Amino acid sequence: MSSTAASPGAAEAHLPGVPRTLRWEGDAGTGALVLIDQRLLPRARQDLRCDTSGEVFEAIRTLAVRGAPAIGGAAAYGLVLGAREALEGEGAYYDRLASKAEHLASSRPTAVNLGWALDRMLGVARAASDEEPPAILARLLDEARTIEEEDAAMCRAIGRHGAALLAPGARVLTHCNAGALATCGIGTALGVIYTAHADKKGIEVFARETRPLLQGARITSFELSEAGVPVTLIADGMAGALMTRRGVDAVVVGADRIARNGDVANKIGTYELAVLAERHGVPFYVAAPSSTFDLAIASGDEIPIEERAPEELRELRGVPTAPESVAVWNPAFDVTPAALVRAIITERGVIAPPSEAAVMAHLA
Amino acid sequence: MSSTAASPGAAEAHLPGVPRTLRWEGDAGTGALVLIDQRLLPRARQDLRCDTSGEVFEAIRTLAVRGAPAIGGAAAYGLVLGAREALEGEGAYYDRLASKAEHLASSRPTAVNLGWALDRMLGVARAASDEEPPAILARLLDEARTIEEEDAAMCRAIGRHGAALLAPGARVLTHCNAGALATCGIGTALGVIYTAHADKKGIEVFARETRPLLQGARITSFELSEAGVPVTLIADGMAGALMTRRGVDAVVVGADRIARNGDVANKIGTYELAVLAERHGVPFYVAAPSSTFDLAIASGDEIPIEERAPEELRELRGVPTAPESVAVWNPAFDVTPAALVRAIITERGVIAPPSEAAVMAHLA
Repeated sequence: MSSTAASPGAAEAHLPGVPRTLRWEGDAGTGALVLIDQRLLPRARQDLRCDTSGEVFEAIRTLAVRGAPAIGGAAAYGLVLGAREALEGEGAYYDRLASKAEHLASSRPTAVNLGWALDRMLGVARAASDEEPPAILARLLDEARTIEEEDAAMCRAIGRHGAALLAPGARVLTHCNAGALATCGIGTALGVIYTAHADKKGIEVFARETRPLLQGARITSFELSEAGVPVTLIADGMAGALMTRRGVDAVVVGADRIARNGDVANKIGTYELAVLAERHGVPFYVAAPSSTFDLAIASGDEIPIEERAPEELRELRGVPTAPESVAVWNPAFDVTPAALVRAIITERGVIAPPSEAAVMAHLA
Repeated sequence: MSSTAASPGAAEAHLPGVPRTLRWEGDAGTGALVLIDQRLLPRARQDLRCDTSGEVFEAIRTLAVRGAPAIGGAAAYGLVLGAREALEGEGAYYDRLASKAEHLASSRPTAVNLGWALDRMLGVARAASDEEPPAILARLLDEARTIEEEDAAMCRAIGRHGAALLAPGARVLTHCNAGALATCGIGTALGVIYTAHADKKGIEVFARETRPLLQGARITSFELSEAGVPVTLIADGMAGALMTRRGVDAVVVGADRIARNGDVANKIGTYELAVLAERHGVPFYVAAPSSTFDLAIASGDEIPIEERAPEELRELRGVPTAPESVAVWNPAFDVTPAALVRAIITERGVIAPPSEAAVMAHLA
């Protein structure tokens, strides 16, 4: 069995010290997907080795890996493992493969990148259906690596475009986790930060904890610390005081969906940050792949907002935080009007200021 | 032993259903201080009966009772218990009493109201030092009741002045806990809300959870629910989305200190709420006793801000929420400029808009 290093193309798109969410180790015949087990964060960093597609299914289902691009990458490698398992069995090889893909897709049914990555993998298998199963398996490993590398390269491009906007010594405030641990690369908003840090700009980062699920506290402050980027954690309600008392030079956040006019849907709390940034004259930047634009949506008013379970505010891992029957409003996202956004940073460059015309020109 | 009802004057200053933080039950010779044990919130409501000054000391020290005015009231009754214990012993009665007061004062050394209430009680004992100890004990119970009743009456007056500012059906947003459970009465910001509710204005309340210590989730949403006021809990970062998507008619918060020019120091997160309120054209009200003004302080810039322990953001009752060594900035308060405050509501009336001239005229 040839010993293969971890996907080399993707490695180039990484930066030293930045945690790598996932990597394939070994060849198609005996290799495995190795993940950072995010269930153990923020207190332990431990790898989770998945040797079967069933283990990848469980890893996605139990949030050992999360973040849309990272889930897509994990699912692609999961199907490589499924393709290996399917070398033995009855009926057409493609059908056995499609059944593995269907199972993987059910691990988090609403994750768009999951279905997208699996469809792309199945397309490769279908196009190669006149080849022998071991050859198809090899093609699938190549395709999974390509998916990972494309995402990592996109993060690097976003990072480069965004880092150019940060001055040396900048104090940068971020929200939630648009980081390496959510992607196959160095992240989007945090990709900007990692790139500026690698450029030795001497930046300093403040991470908002991001209630209710605390992605900023649990994940962003963890991965920035791991990478050696100076980071200070604050509660969500401290951003205004931070701007007043310590000063902030830029806000950089990710995005879940961006409307045609540049309105940005992102994790709840983002809008408040944009309002505060405007009051304090702090540039507010959104970093996201160009695939985040939903051109079918004219403005933020049309973006549907998921409302999540009240338990997220009533308790934290079994510790009661509120009366058990109190009414709760728990929207997952809010919408930041384009007028509050200084620039949107994609892998293609920078849209500044965002407007429908500028968005359409950027994506053309 | 004559059976005495719970302090009747204070009862009149309460409103039906509003939890009563503390009450004295019985006479000076055998009575006791009964507290709502706030250590068990938000999930259980249970009384804590203190028959000795040592039990009151422990109740204050362990936060079974908290909030400056409530601590003052509890300490006053604690000294009644101390005065009863001091009926037996050697040396001058006043000296034994002063030693009890000194011990009580050490339960929370930085609580201003604690020392103030105990000094006032000792003053009564000193003025009556030619009387017999049982007569002094009776005077001390009267004085403790007066302290409680004055605070309750002040809350009611704030409530009446503030409720007049709320329209029928108003959706009111509040932060932290400036409520019944922090005072001897119906609270300050929540006193406004309870009064409007008692006036059958059909108001609806949104409570911000108030990280890191979650006073809004644990205490405000608890006491409003107990009193039958419709309340919905949100995370701190949801206030902007609430204003955009559901609409808010007024923000009402308390204050820890107010400068001569009307700048308001209050629980961290208050300033952000004021900025959001201004953007959305929502009136922002501060409700606090006139004793909250610190005329020695010209503006909010001079108000010192306590920074609290990083553990408050790194874990929640033993559950890790962030890496254990991550840097944390944890200011307890922020400052809201007077220009963002529509009105300050005290027991004397309303200062609208706040300015140095208006503040000085109000307090004259």
